[in-house]
Amino acid sequence: MTNDTICALATPNGIGAIGVIRVSGSDAKSITSRVFSRDLKETVSHTSHFGTIKSKEGAIVDEVLVTVFDTGKSFTGEESVEIGCHGSPYIQQQIIQLLLASGCRMAQPGEFTQRAFLNGQMDLSQAEAVADLIAAQSRGAHNIAIKQLRGNFSNRLKELREKLIHFASLVELELDFAEEDVEFADRTELKALVADVLAYIKRLAQSFELGNAIKNGVPVAIVGAPNTGKSTLLNQLLEDDRAIVSNIAGTTRDVIEETLNIDGILFRLIDTAGIRDNAEEIEALGIERSREKIKQATVVLCLVDSSDLEGLTAGNSLVTSIRSDYPDKKVLLVLNKLDLKTPEHSDGALAISAKEGTNIDDLKLWMVNSVSGDFDLAEETIVSNARHYDALIRTSEALEKALEGLETGITGDFVAMDIRQAMYELGQITGDISTDDLLGNIFAKFCIGK
Amino acid sequence: MTNDTICALATPNGIGAIGVIRVSGSDAKSITSRVFSRDLKETVSHTSHFGTIKSKEGAIVDEVLVTVFDTGKSFTGEESVEIGCHGSPYIQQQIIQLLLASGCRMAQPGEFTQRAFLNGQMDLSQAEAVADLIAAQSRGAHNIAIKQLRGNFSNRLKELREKLIHFASLVELELDFAEEDVEFADRTELKALVADVLAYIKRLAQSFELGNAIKNGVPVAIVGAPNTGKSTLLNQLLEDDRAIVSNIAGTTRDVIEETLNIDGILFRLIDTAGIRDNAEEIEALGIERSREKIKQATVVLCLVDSSDLEGLTAGNSLVTSIRSDYPDKKVLLVLNKLDLKTPEHSDGALAISAKEGTNIDDLKLWMVNSVSGDFDLAEETIVSNARHYDALIRTSEALEKALEGLETGITGDFVAMDIRQAMYELGQITGDISTDDLLGNIFAKFCIGK
Repeated sequence: MTNDTICALATPNGIGAIGVIRVSGSDAKSITSRVFSRDLKETVSHTSHFGTIKSKEGAIVDEVLVTVFDTGKSFTGEESVEIGCHGSPYIQQQIIQLLLASGCRMAQPGEFTQRAFLNGQMDLSQAEAVADLIAAQSRGAHNIAIKQLRGNFSNRLKELREKLIHFASLVELELDFAEEDVEFADRTELKALVADVLAYIKRLAQSFELGNAIKNGVPVAIVGAPNTGKSTLLNQLLEDDRAIVSNIAGTTRDVIEETLNIDGILFRLIDTAGIRDNAEEIEALGIERSREKIKQATVVLCLVDSSDLEGLTAGNSLVTSIRSDYPDKKVLLVLNKLDLKTPEHSDGALAISAKEGTNIDDLKLWMVNSVSGDFDLAEETIVSNARHYDALIRTSEALEKALEGLETGITGDFVAMDIRQAMYELGQITGDISTDDLLGNIFAKFCIGK
Repeated sequence: MTNDTICALATPNGIGAIGVIRVSGSDAKSITSRVFSRDLKETVSHTSHFGTIKSKEGAIVDEVLVTVFDTGKSFTGEESVEIGCHGSPYIQQQIIQLLLASGCRMAQPGEFTQRAFLNGQMDLSQAEAVADLIAAQSRGAHNIAIKQLRGNFSNRLKELREKLIHFASLVELELDFAEEDVEFADRTELKALVADVLAYIKRLAQSFELGNAIKNGVPVAIVGAPNTGKSTLLNQLLEDDRAIVSNIAGTTRDVIEETLNIDGILFRLIDTAGIRDNAEEIEALGIERSREKIKQATVVLCLVDSSDLEGLTAGNSLVTSIRSDYPDKKVLLVLNKLDLKTPEHSDGALAISAKEGTNIDDLKLWMVNSVSGDFDLAEETIVSNARHYDALIRTSEALEKALEGLETGITGDFVAMDIRQAMYELGQITGDISTDDLLGNIFAKFCIGK
């Protein structure tokens, strides 16, 4: 673990009013003082100082605001400096060049956060949450990331580990007295404890499907024969969404793919260009394309024109075939054109009018519920990280072995081994157990400056 | 002049480690306190405070670092707060929404800088320099902007205005004693003074051609018959440039148009795509295209193959014709392929080998000198703003009238009027004289957040 001083631009590349350059390491203040018009040596943590950055030749590069942080009081836990300069790529490059020439090293991707982890400012799952938080585009994804950053997930895991430690120590204590054949731990209680922890771990692992969908957006396919109102429905959904976000300046929308933010969950609409171009699809090609979209989607909305009896039958059979081919997909038969004809009640179908906006709220509710299932997004811990999911699966495998061992009356040392294995796997999530490779892998995916 | 509290994202849009939201106005601290976990009322200027931003429902939006600035000690001169949050567009949007709901108004483009001007933190030419500084892409443009921001230009103008005020008051004093027919001011001295100021104003106005070229980049055309080495020269120039900048991470290059940074001056190479595609141009079309490029260019490099006598003659006559058609353009005859044949000495021509890089430094020196003329970029004040140029031209017109009046012995009141007019025009540059329209025009071109 090195403590050399690193620097990098922390704000996005590009032109803005302000840019921030981060400096962290044992010489952060003294290196910055070499390029700054004031000596930072005697400055107090968390104070800002106005001055100029000067080149070696004495030319003024910029007027800046420098904020200092003492060891133990910064994001990284190291002595740190933040240089707030003008938001000019040229100036930022000049200042970084000066810092490099004065003893700094260019930071590796994620190195600031990695140092925060290595210095005990946060555990590994919290460090990973930093990247997730920054990338979060919806309330749902943000909610998961901020909870993880705040230690919600870590604290749950810590509780579980403590339970397992307690369990393991009881079993191991028995081993010490093996010849006396005592049982310190009531087997029934032990089984209940492991089963309890196992159930919780499984629930966490199950939440990954939801967490992953929320983090990456839920792919949605809108399919149906020509003239069933796909394009009208798409516009109706998007318009509602736009109305919510358009009054905030600076809101940018992904132009490549249409997305829909419903109740904090991001839905990614597949192939909206195909829906948008109103050229009639040749029926065969249409079905071909629909199949492709359905394969990619998690949520499938099958639109039929409820005034068209033939179409209704075809739609019904399409839904049935999707459900049998892909039992995991969430499929809804949507009976459109309620404004033209009130359809007969149909199980598992929803009647709407895309044109007049009737029952669109019900449709959205169905979409959200189909994704979130019985998970309580506001209260429950949701796992959104594939690495955590893998570790949870391995944990539950070890716990299952332990439980099996307890049930078949296997000797305590084997049970203890399985429990230790489960703890080891859990420890990888929080980084209590970590290797350089693992850390390298995680932080290399971060941007420079994080 | 209002003092309501405004807010905006100050860092570039996009994903980064850190984003900064600016809040400025009389309620900056109290409004921020409504969404922040700590009360900022009693905080000391220039201190940073770690805490959380919470929604009205109490959900944590982000962990942030809030820095406070007291009235008179901030960029705008108003009570100000900077919220350093995670560099996530979603989070930034949420925080801005909360601030708006708590009593802030969204800032207009340039409103922070406009307030800095209105509160006397900087004059108008300094405020304009903020935008120039942020946009500067080369050392030359940066140098002009930072000097202007630091008040170099303003101070020069202030000196000139003081001289003129002194002059005007002497003349006006005479007017009070008109019946006694006294002359307080020695006419010869007065003439010398006005001539002196006029010469300086003219020099400033002349510098605009250079300033504008530096600010926007100098358009360069490389022309010549096929196989004279245009593409080789282009690559040679670009390669040199790349070597200088490529070792700094985060350097981005304009991909649409090739640019060349020589000695801090940005040269924009016109139609390099045309040079790059090696398809032989039909001669007629080639000349046509060259003519078009020459028209757009400030600097023209005419390449000839010095081993090709016929081409040499054609090149010479091309240069002569450009010089007679466009006397303002800087044209150089470049005798390429020095490696194949040492050309005869030719006045106003430069022999190079694009292939081997021979005399490329001389070529670059010529390019820089052709643009900077006799101006001393390091020491002299260079004008780069069209508005300032216009005001300088009007100033010099008024001063010329004053000088003419002094020479023809016109009465003092007319001379005084011309001097007052000159002062009025100069005052527009620094904003001593300004109208809402003028300010609106200037700041509307800024980004929001500046």
